[in-house]
Amino acid sequence: MAHEPGAPVRVALLGCGVVGSSVARLLTEHADDLAARVGAPLELVGIAVRRPQRPRPDVPVDPSLFTADAEELVTRADVVVEVIGGIDPARGLILRAMEHGAGVVSANKALVAEDGPTLFEAAARNGVDLYYEAAVAGAIPILRPVRESLAGDRVRRVMGIVNGTTNFVLDKMDVSGAGFAETVEEAQALGYAEADPTADVEGFDAAAKAAILASLAFHTRVSSAHVHREGITEVSAADIRAARENDCVVKLLAICERVTASGSDAVSVRVHPAMVPRSHPLASVREAFNAVFVEAEAAGELMFYGRGAGGDPTASAVLGDLVAVARQRVSGGHGPGESAYADLPVVDLGQAVTRYHISLDVADRPGVLAQVAAVFAEQGVSIETVRQQAGPEDDGRARLIVVTHRATDAALSATVEDLAALESVDDVVSVMRVEGA
Amino acid sequence: MAHEPGAPVRVALLGCGVVGSSVARLLTEHADDLAARVGAPLELVGIAVRRPQRPRPDVPVDPSLFTADAEELVTRADVVVEVIGGIDPARGLILRAMEHGAGVVSANKALVAEDGPTLFEAAARNGVDLYYEAAVAGAIPILRPVRESLAGDRVRRVMGIVNGTTNFVLDKMDVSGAGFAETVEEAQALGYAEADPTADVEGFDAAAKAAILASLAFHTRVSSAHVHREGITEVSAADIRAARENDCVVKLLAICERVTASGSDAVSVRVHPAMVPRSHPLASVREAFNAVFVEAEAAGELMFYGRGAGGDPTASAVLGDLVAVARQRVSGGHGPGESAYADLPVVDLGQAVTRYHISLDVADRPGVLAQVAAVFAEQGVSIETVRQQAGPEDDGRARLIVVTHRATDAALSATVEDLAALESVDDVVSVMRVEGA
Ligand SMILES: NC(=O)c1ccc[n+]([C@@H]2O[C@H](COP(=O)([O-])OP(=O)(O)OC[C@H]3O[C@@H](n4cnc5c(N)ncnc54)[C@H](OP(=O)(O)O)[C@@H]3O)[C@@H](O)[C@H]2O)c1
Ligand SMILES: NC(=O)c1ccc[n+]([C@@H]2O[C@H](COP(=O)([O-])OP(=O)(O)OC[C@H]3O[C@@H](n4cnc5c(N)ncnc54)[C@H](OP(=O)(O)O)[C@@H]3O)[C@@H](O)[C@H]2O)c1
Repeated sequence: MAHEPGAPVRVALLGCGVVGSSVARLLTEHADDLAARVGAPLELVGIAVRRPQRPRPDVPVDPSLFTADAEELVTRADVVVEVIGGIDPARGLILRAMEHGAGVVSANKALVAEDGPTLFEAAARNGVDLYYEAAVAGAIPILRPVRESLAGDRVRRVMGIVNGTTNFVLDKMDVSGAGFAETVEEAQALGYAEADPTADVEGFDAAAKAAILASLAFHTRVSSAHVHREGITEVSAADIRAARENDCVVKLLAICERVTASGSDAVSVRVHPAMVPRSHPLASVREAFNAVFVEAEAAGELMFYGRGAGGDPTASAVLGDLVAVARQRVSGGHGPGESAYADLPVVDLGQAVTRYHISLDVADRPGVLAQVAAVFAEQGVSIETVRQQAGPEDDGRARLIVVTHRATDAALSATVEDLAALESVDDVVSVMRVEGA
Repeated sequence: MAHEPGAPVRVALLGCGVVGSSVARLLTEHADDLAARVGAPLELVGIAVRRPQRPRPDVPVDPSLFTADAEELVTRADVVVEVIGGIDPARGLILRAMEHGAGVVSANKALVAEDGPTLFEAAARNGVDLYYEAAVAGAIPILRPVRESLAGDRVRRVMGIVNGTTNFVLDKMDVSGAGFAETVEEAQALGYAEADPTADVEGFDAAAKAAILASLAFHTRVSSAHVHREGITEVSAADIRAARENDCVVKLLAICERVTASGSDAVSVRVHPAMVPRSHPLASVREAFNAVFVEAEAAGELMFYGRGAGGDPTASAVLGDLVAVARQRVSGGHGPGESAYADLPVVDLGQAVTRYHISLDVADRPGVLAQVAAVFAEQGVSIETVRQQAGPEDDGRARLIVVTHRATDAALSATVEDLAALESVDDVVSVMRVEGA
């Protein structure tokens, strides 16, 4: 559909919660700037919500714009902004919008990560744009840089802190020395964690973002189901202490790597807590901030840092996409569509190459270190350092701290299993992967 | 000109030095990936250099591609990549390329900052794209995020470390305590500073980048001539020490700010050394790395970090632009053109609001502090803190360290002048602006 010169671009907003209300407000407050940047005014033609009668004093729009009939609303827009979240009805509404010729902007990581290909194919079939910058790391421009700025490069690795809640919790545990449960309660009280924090602390949210990042970085379809996921619920005060002693911090990382499997290129995508050296740029990401570290062949190391959530920051990313889609509407042409040409296999975690930091409580007697070392050797895992600390009490126990070289995760986890079974090992105090060293 | 499906996109490379040779190599090595991402193969049709006969063993292309006739080469390309540098002949070649219908990618900060509007108008007139991501902060995607990702937001401030040489020198001075001259020699020996380091150490290079960033961030035409520029040649070991004692580091910053002048919006653009608190994200940018800190109304604080120079990193940015321009060539449509609709006035430094950190050697006797304070008061500058240190020797001298509140730079520099003229002030040891606090 060619755009008539001077005519407004009709925008439908689906959802008016944390993100949607910021989008509506900024659309109104910045109307003149947006019109100048798009080349035509943006006209908000309706806002679909569950409860259209609800007073929304912080949303400065004509109340008659609110509707419960999202199905109808999407048929009379040039661009649809979906900020409802979840799989249904968001998916159906987006597909319907595209069939009616609208471009789509979404912040919906869950949907894009679970069923992106359905959306991408619909966008291509209908010749419309689909943008979702806000789905990963909120305000931080990361999808556009990976997809466009690095389009001439080869990405090796993306390593991100992409969930603010878990970073807040881990940061507080690091500062206070407190345990996981009590710190989550504190985060809830401060509004940094939801009443049901499962999606964040179990790593589901980060896994969705990892899938999206990996898809773009490696031109391969990666969905949430491909992502190995471990949350932070098992991270103990002992782990945090062990990290400190190793001059590291514990971060929940989303890692997307180009790896070699059976002699050819493949992709490993995983979310898990890891020790990161304090000197690494990601280590200094505090509180609920997000950051994404990218290593590319020619560009080298890049880092992108900012706010990963919140109404206004997320709305900033949504509006950036909205301007792009609307501008293309006005000028003709399209943004880059999905690209999955590389179609690399996604390997499971066992094949990924990682390093472990292991603390063990052992019997303090001759021969124990040799026993422990033998277990590593049997699994073909080579040890980088071993440190032995006398136990706190004079009770014949000692602490062994082992940092391994890189080995497959399968070999490393088998090693830990065998260590735990040794008669001379009382307790496996902490096991954590080491990244960024 | 519509692109014939399947036909290659013809690429002409102007310049084959540090950046150009990396571009040529990556074009060759990544040919398959690039073709998949563009939707058509990229065909290198020629490389213009000064000395076409010169052997270039590190550039894996057919030697017959080299030519001295750049004027002719640009007439037979779909996209021209200009990595010669300088004003002429680069400008004429770019204009000629556009007149012949080619899109242009350039890494030439000097040219874009000095005479951008001539280029932008030619691009618009000829309906072609002009991209120049590599001109600012090398590999770091910063222009595309500012121009596109933040297109729905309002940028308040851009503050960047955009010159690697000066950051390397200041970082070394901080670590070693050595003076400027000796550190520049060290940087030259290590290849981090050129034989003639003027463009870097006098801030010309950073000023060009500041002009480009300000133009995009504020939708206003800002050229190098608008930028207040101070280099690092006057930064002394005493300044670095003073910064240390104030828990700061000295950085050469390019600052682009939205300010209020005579009651309406305006822009301040300046390059100067400044003290930055060690806790600020920019303070941890070491060696020759670059980083750009952006504050936007909705997005909040963002930071972009990476390598600001070097053949491969710069070529990564060039190729990202090349893929974008070529993709638009293939699919039809254009990227966002120049936008100068806001047309804000650029104020001079005197009107910018800054803070100063001043160290003075004074006579250690009653009444001197009152005298000093009176000078500040006369200029209407309010003092945040004063610290008094006994001099190293018992000679009746003391050191006063004053940090001011925000005031116009004009008032602050007048204050320093008056202080220097006081009979009780022996020496103005260090004067430096404070940013990021
Ligand atoms: N919050 C963040 O910081 C953040 C950051 C990045 C991405 N995101 C993503 O942004 C999206 C929205 O998040 P949010 O935090 O703004 O959610 P939210 O506050 O829960 O708001 C959801 C909105 O959708 C409306 N809605 C729910 N079901 C609907 C239906 N069936 N039909 C029409 N409208 C319906 C709700 O209407 P009522 O108002 O009537 O209840 C509400 O306005 C999610 O995909 C989320 O993952 C959020
Ligand atoms: N180097 C970096 O790290 C970096 C980073 C960001 C941006 N940039 C920008 O990238 C551009 C290129 O920088 P560079 O470091 O690659 O420069 P360079 O190493 O000096 O290379 C310049 C190239 O241009 C060729 N050339 C010079 N005059 C010419 C003419 N009249 N006609 C045709 N070719 C001519 C030279 O030919 P010969 O080979 O025959 O001498 C050489 O190949 C500049 O605008 C620079 O500001 C550079």
